[in-house]
Amino acid sequence: MPSVVPTLDFGSMTQAIQFLMEIDKLKSVQRRTKVLGRQRQENSAEHSWHFAIAALSLAPYAGENVDIQRVIQMALLHDIVEIDAGDVMVYDLAARAAIHDQEIAAAKRLFGLLPEPQREYFTALWQEYEDGESADARFAQVLDRSMPILMNLHNEGQSWVENDIRLEQVLARNTMIADTQPELWKHLLQHLQDAQRKGWLK
Amino acid sequence: MPSVVPTLDFGSMTQAIQFLMEIDKLKSVQRRTKVLGRQRQENSAEHSWHFAIAALSLAPYAGENVDIQRVIQMALLHDIVEIDAGDVMVYDLAARAAIHDQEIAAAKRLFGLLPEPQREYFTALWQEYEDGESADARFAQVLDRSMPILMNLHNEGQSWVENDIRLEQVLARNTMIADTQPELWKHLLQHLQDAQRKGWLK
Repeated sequence: MPSVVPTLDFGSMTQAIQFLMEIDKLKSVQRRTKVLGRQRQENSAEHSWHFAIAALSLAPYAGENVDIQRVIQMALLHDIVEIDAGDVMVYDLAARAAIHDQEIAAAKRLFGLLPEPQREYFTALWQEYEDGESADARFAQVLDRSMPILMNLHNEGQSWVENDIRLEQVLARNTMIADTQPELWKHLLQHLQDAQRKGWLK
Repeated sequence: MPSVVPTLDFGSMTQAIQFLMEIDKLKSVQRRTKVLGRQRQENSAEHSWHFAIAALSLAPYAGENVDIQRVIQMALLHDIVEIDAGDVMVYDLAARAAIHDQEIAAAKRLFGLLPEPQREYFTALWQEYEDGESADARFAQVLDRSMPILMNLHNEGQSWVENDIRLEQVLARNTMIADTQPELWKHLLQHLQDAQRKGWLK
């Protein structure tokens, strides 16, 4: 189990500040996606920021039953378990299944650094996001899935090309975007087909 | 003026997605602060994530008149102007004054990529944060100021040492933390004095 960053006494705020210092490690978790321009891989902390601001920017399209503030909070939290469990690409189905127990343990350790009521609140929000059943979690998952697709469409298909991804994999793994946001999917589908014609997807 | 990332047609979502692709550049704006462990400088996108999740983690200390959702939104937005204007350390008073007009122009260009009502909403929220007068903006500024102090306290004073910062500069520039969050300041002050004894601050 990774070591916890030592922290200082901040009275009743000590645990929350210890949590904040520990999750600095998310800035060092590398994703397959690169920043636009392809100078380097993006990390899961900056991806979480990008996802959260996507929620705020696309709020008018979320639907009336979505609480965009909870979606933003899910974005901020959703990848923290990767500090212990690592990032696994959405198309690597075997690795994603294998990592599930590690993510549960990671949530317990990392959110467990917080005092109550935040410990329970953060854990429940992360679990709701993972389950993907509530309207808030579904919109959050649409954004989390859409961000790397949008990045690749503006980045010459970078992570698709580097990982030999096929168009049919992208279509099969993202049916939930089509179900939840048909208008967004209509445009994504057209651009994905164009990407295949350009050789960015097999 | 920096070029805008070319974007694709997404129907009524086109402008919001163009904005999201353009602000990917915040991931390449370097701060003086390094990630814990000091392998590299942190960038303003991952700092914005860290600040936003600090707001969520420290929400119980915000005070009853603070809307933590608006603080989180300020965190997500507050540094976007740095894409055009660059990051200036809080202790570089001359540079901070000089950059003000550039930040106004940057807000106009970058938030101007969005359609209404987001354009006006993002601009007004950024301006409120900059003005630092509302309770939400004040709590947001406390967190934005506290994060690099907390990072330095857990990172052997890295950006203070590298920039020859004196304890009296940190005290003079952060009186607003003392005014707004006296309990947090009490602990920070003690740790800052310890940091000077260790030679991390002059």
